[in-house]
Amino acid sequence: MEKLKVIKIGGNIVDDPQALSSFLKDFSSINDHKILIHGGGKIATQLAEKLGIKTQMHEGKRITNQETIDIVTMVYGGLINKKIVGQLNAHNTTTIGLTGADAQVVLAQKRPLIDIDYGYVGDIIKVNSEFIKTLIISGLTIVFAPLTADTNGQILNTNADTMAQAIAVAMSAIFDTELIYCFEKNGVLNDLNNDNSIIPKIDFELYHNLKQQGVVNAGMIPKLDNAFKAIEAGVKTVLIGHARNIAKMEQSDYICTKITL
Amino acid sequence: MEKLKVIKIGGNIVDDPQALSSFLKDFSSINDHKILIHGGGKIATQLAEKLGIKTQMHEGKRITNQETIDIVTMVYGGLINKKIVGQLNAHNTTTIGLTGADAQVVLAQKRPLIDIDYGYVGDIIKVNSEFIKTLIISGLTIVFAPLTADTNGQILNTNADTMAQAIAVAMSAIFDTELIYCFEKNGVLNDLNNDNSIIPKIDFELYHNLKQQGVVNAGMIPKLDNAFKAIEAGVKTVLIGHARNIAKMEQSDYICTKITL
Repeated sequence: MEKLKVIKIGGNIVDDPQALSSFLKDFSSINDHKILIHGGGKIATQLAEKLGIKTQMHEGKRITNQETIDIVTMVYGGLINKKIVGQLNAHNTTTIGLTGADAQVVLAQKRPLIDIDYGYVGDIIKVNSEFIKTLIISGLTIVFAPLTADTNGQILNTNADTMAQAIAVAMSAIFDTELIYCFEKNGVLNDLNNDNSIIPKIDFELYHNLKQQGVVNAGMIPKLDNAFKAIEAGVKTVLIGHARNIAKMEQSDYICTKITL
Repeated sequence: MEKLKVIKIGGNIVDDPQALSSFLKDFSSINDHKILIHGGGKIATQLAEKLGIKTQMHEGKRITNQETIDIVTMVYGGLINKKIVGQLNAHNTTTIGLTGADAQVVLAQKRPLIDIDYGYVGDIIKVNSEFIKTLIISGLTIVFAPLTADTNGQILNTNADTMAQAIAVAMSAIFDTELIYCFEKNGVLNDLNNDNSIIPKIDFELYHNLKQQGVVNAGMIPKLDNAFKAIEAGVKTVLIGHARNIAKMEQSDYICTKITL
């Protein structure tokens, strides 16, 4: 099996032009097949503010009304995605930018209304791994914006961590797939105030204990849930670390957090 | 040679959700290979206004500063492109949305400063027809936003009529290519106030006369220049007509204007 890296970068890197530029240079130097999934929540929030649209959140999740889905479609699918595409092509990495809506590659459904209506938020149903494989085999790197569509073509806001996990799981049947969550910390930390307190390996038992002890907090739990979901479903390796270390994560045990079963 | 239709729709259709929806249904019913290029100037101007950014025009052309290129990247590359992609996929037309920046498929350079600095405006250098062919042969319909990038990855605002012409010309070496300009009129009109006064055929001599008589005005001249450039460079047919007639343009001589050498 050929190797594929599915790498997710968060809003903190996307918001910082220098950090992003440096990351994309490192990303383009990776020789394996690769897919990038980007977030970008802060730029969307700033644009919404400028337009006088209030950003409503519920338990850390954005409530996406008509005005908000238009904003994230613009910011994620247009501004951020195409800036990244432009830079990667300039680094000789032949790259196309897509959303899950393109060719229905990541098909979703509007989140069902239970206690709260999240609006135009997508829950992923299916990833078209054969389509992604065709693009990869033809030599393309794909950059995904965290948007999907339902069968009616309605664009849906979709969690980037979850989208990265779903794509990595689907591709793990075709490639030897590694999922890497890049963010602004060195990994899962024992002490949030000490950037060197990286926990090098977390298995399910340790995760359970860390949650009970309150070492991993509310923001980290969905990411770790996605990481364990991926590893349980066939993704070979899941790493969580700092974007600036992307090119060297496999060379050292103490540079990021590795998730194991 | 297999047939390919390269169809351009203007801002007036894009701005009208019902007209757009109806056009996309007709477009999806076309059985030949097809590429769609969309404009979208009005939505970008409206967003710029809401953000307090002045739209500067010079001889009908948008001057594109840093703020403006960000806006058109959002509106053209994100909002409009992905809405169209979603709808076409819902009509079972497997569609991906791209800009010229993706895979450097339409490579451009920043327009050289002569009398006036148009800012981030792209003049097309090269269309990667082999890349487009690969996508088409694999069964995909491509929807292009009127954006390109230079070799440094800088996104550039690009005239949609010109982009459609350049793509049609490049593809005419591979496919039996037809270029269709769709807009809000029934074709090139003898009398702008009479929508039935369609000129059914225009050759270069008649075009020259119409210009001298002032029948074709400033807004139509660049479109007709692009049309003649296309037909001179190998595009088999160029039609100019109303978007609502897209599905029946070839069935009648008096439903649109045909450009001939």
